[in-house]
Amino acid sequence: MTSVSTAAPLRIEADYLLETPGDPRRTAETMAGEQSSGTFVPVPGETPELKARSAARVERLDLLDEAPGPTLPSAGGRDGPVRRARVTLSWPMDNLGPSLPNLLATVAGNLFELKPVTGLRLLDIRLPQAFADAYPGPRFGIAGTRRLAGVEDRPLIGTIVKPSVGFGPEETASLVASLCEGGIDFVKDDELQADGPHCPFDDRVRAVMRVVNAHADRTGRKVMVAFNLTGDLDQMRRRHDLLVREGATCMMASLNSVGLVGMIELARFGTLPIHAHRNGWGYLSRHPLLGWSYVAWQKIWRLAGADHMHVNGLANKFAEDDDSVVDSARTCLTPLFPDKPCLAMPVFSSGQGVRQAPGTYAALGSTDLIVTAGGGIMAHPDGPAAGVSALREAWDAAVAGIPLADYARDRPDLSRALGAAA
Amino acid sequence: MTSVSTAAPLRIEADYLLETPGDPRRTAETMAGEQSSGTFVPVPGETPELKARSAARVERLDLLDEAPGPTLPSAGGRDGPVRRARVTLSWPMDNLGPSLPNLLATVAGNLFELKPVTGLRLLDIRLPQAFADAYPGPRFGIAGTRRLAGVEDRPLIGTIVKPSVGFGPEETASLVASLCEGGIDFVKDDELQADGPHCPFDDRVRAVMRVVNAHADRTGRKVMVAFNLTGDLDQMRRRHDLLVREGATCMMASLNSVGLVGMIELARFGTLPIHAHRNGWGYLSRHPLLGWSYVAWQKIWRLAGADHMHVNGLANKFAEDDDSVVDSARTCLTPLFPDKPCLAMPVFSSGQGVRQAPGTYAALGSTDLIVTAGGGIMAHPDGPAAGVSALREAWDAAVAGIPLADYARDRPDLSRALGAAA
Repeated sequence: MTSVSTAAPLRIEADYLLETPGDPRRTAETMAGEQSSGTFVPVPGETPELKARSAARVERLDLLDEAPGPTLPSAGGRDGPVRRARVTLSWPMDNLGPSLPNLLATVAGNLFELKPVTGLRLLDIRLPQAFADAYPGPRFGIAGTRRLAGVEDRPLIGTIVKPSVGFGPEETASLVASLCEGGIDFVKDDELQADGPHCPFDDRVRAVMRVVNAHADRTGRKVMVAFNLTGDLDQMRRRHDLLVREGATCMMASLNSVGLVGMIELARFGTLPIHAHRNGWGYLSRHPLLGWSYVAWQKIWRLAGADHMHVNGLANKFAEDDDSVVDSARTCLTPLFPDKPCLAMPVFSSGQGVRQAPGTYAALGSTDLIVTAGGGIMAHPDGPAAGVSALREAWDAAVAGIPLADYARDRPDLSRALGAAA
Repeated sequence: MTSVSTAAPLRIEADYLLETPGDPRRTAETMAGEQSSGTFVPVPGETPELKARSAARVERLDLLDEAPGPTLPSAGGRDGPVRRARVTLSWPMDNLGPSLPNLLATVAGNLFELKPVTGLRLLDIRLPQAFADAYPGPRFGIAGTRRLAGVEDRPLIGTIVKPSVGFGPEETASLVASLCEGGIDFVKDDELQADGPHCPFDDRVRAVMRVVNAHADRTGRKVMVAFNLTGDLDQMRRRHDLLVREGATCMMASLNSVGLVGMIELARFGTLPIHAHRNGWGYLSRHPLLGWSYVAWQKIWRLAGADHMHVNGLANKFAEDDDSVVDSARTCLTPLFPDKPCLAMPVFSSGQGVRQAPGTYAALGSTDLIVTAGGGIMAHPDGPAAGVSALREAWDAAVAGIPLADYARDRPDLSRALGAAA
């Protein structure tokens, strides 16, 4: 068991929350068998030595609570009381080698469908050093993102182009121009806007980078714009190359749209920070006894090369509670390997504004993050520039440990933002 | 509404099963807004015309049952009774263009996380013709697979290399040799075995194809082996090229491991049928009020190029019930577009044997399928050859409408298989 160790484990390890109407230990053994050398009937050529060499092991099992009946339906399964347990399985590296795609089939494959499993959630994974050697991790991460954005010692204050569909290239550029004037650090496309016919990617990039570059020429600071290049591989290659030619400093991709091979390729040919959008995360995680925890999931994408990872935000407009958001953000700032931390910048979004700054800072103890506020900036009574200023002031107050209301006394932008958000 | 029409729709359409403690119509409108031009606060530059042009629409809403409380937890959400409804949303093609990755962000993005949504499952999607023009669909499909395997008018009888990990290349080849002698049509790698250090892909392919090619030289029929080339893109390219050089006739990839961009690429550069494995499907589908129905999900992968799609099997060892399996198999054999059917061969697996043949044929009305039986073939009392023969006979009986017990009377292989399975 290495969950408290700082060294990378020698075997692949995965922690699960398991529910079963059967005996938890036996169900855990069934999971281990299904995901390694188990066979339902003896097969010619198999030997105890051969099976032992490749077998997954139940490393640990902690019994948790009972429940009166199964959470997930199971055809022909047993009804009545179920037991829950936290289970750790491990696999020899030699079953698959350091391959992220094959890791998914091993730790998150058929086992979710086993008949005696009425609840299964992948809580965490720990990977041997060979994975750190095989994949790049974030190429830019926190330091690289700060350098390109010209922002030190505070969060990047950002926003999202909205409406996400409807604006054409020139309308988008005009919005970005006013945001640049307002002092924004970061702007992102919406995940719904990649290369729609009304707002083609190439035209949008050219129009937006014209205003971003002009603003940088005047001020010496280039606003980071995460252009959504999500698409087929050849499209993403062409779009990346255009971004480089136009002087852009970030690219955005939807992880569940491109998938793991798409992400690995993007990180390999790409020369810009990758802003990783997690849309679709709900179907992977929304039920507490099924699917993926963010702690496990984000490790895969960070190792593949994601520089920025979406984590939702405190008091967000979605269904996720604050504890879960905080866990997600903290895990992005927790090293993956002792000598290869692969830290990604957590991205806070969804209903974010001045009021979340103190709680976010208190929970995270860091300003290594991106905040993207839509209404929180655009709806400031005195306009977007005041919205950006108010959000910066809110974070200054949070870091200084001064209540927002006190800090706002001689700061009209923050004061008006607090009034508008009340 | 085009669910009963045979023409491709002009807008993208998606059907959902929705649960909400709020008003279902208003929640459906929230979903449509979140996934298109909705903004939580008015934004400078947006106009009613601009928003209307891009807005998603609620095309239809049918109220279903009520339930006493929410299925999925929602932070700060309303407790108490919930309503369920079947909802159809539609989007203008111009929001995204015919892009499969961006389709995912549109029909299966943030909406699963909305606060008033306490249950959401994507039931089906219908796509405009432009998608048919933009993606290849299965290059081989049923006819191409039958031609390469040399099997007409009956299912391909197949099996899986087991134990899936543990065997080296020579042990695998020796097993395949005995299966070839036994008259097998199809052999597949397990999803856990791609390029593990104990059984490297290249060595395995060379060893296995040596025996497959020798058998083809003797008999005139080449057994189709689906080699699991799941990996990073460059690995999949090299592995594909090796398969072609060695005369292999199929390649297997795990869909949830490679993701959509990986699959689209594989279909573009690949020149062999793609055997698409769905491991991980459980975390996408296991809860009836969350995630994806197979009907919706398999359309994405067929259009991207999958030739064979796993559908589990009747009376399987997993949690899925038979009705769901039958729906999955039927949908693979239902045309996607009027002039581009994109039919994929359903693959039945998991605890399959002679006893499932009549029910499977009765439900599907077709022999355009692959059956992969592990124990169902390997555990035949008279060996694998008798196992293959028995499974063929069971399908002959099913197609002829003769009860297995009657058909087995003068057929010892089937008779012994029925006895062993009893």
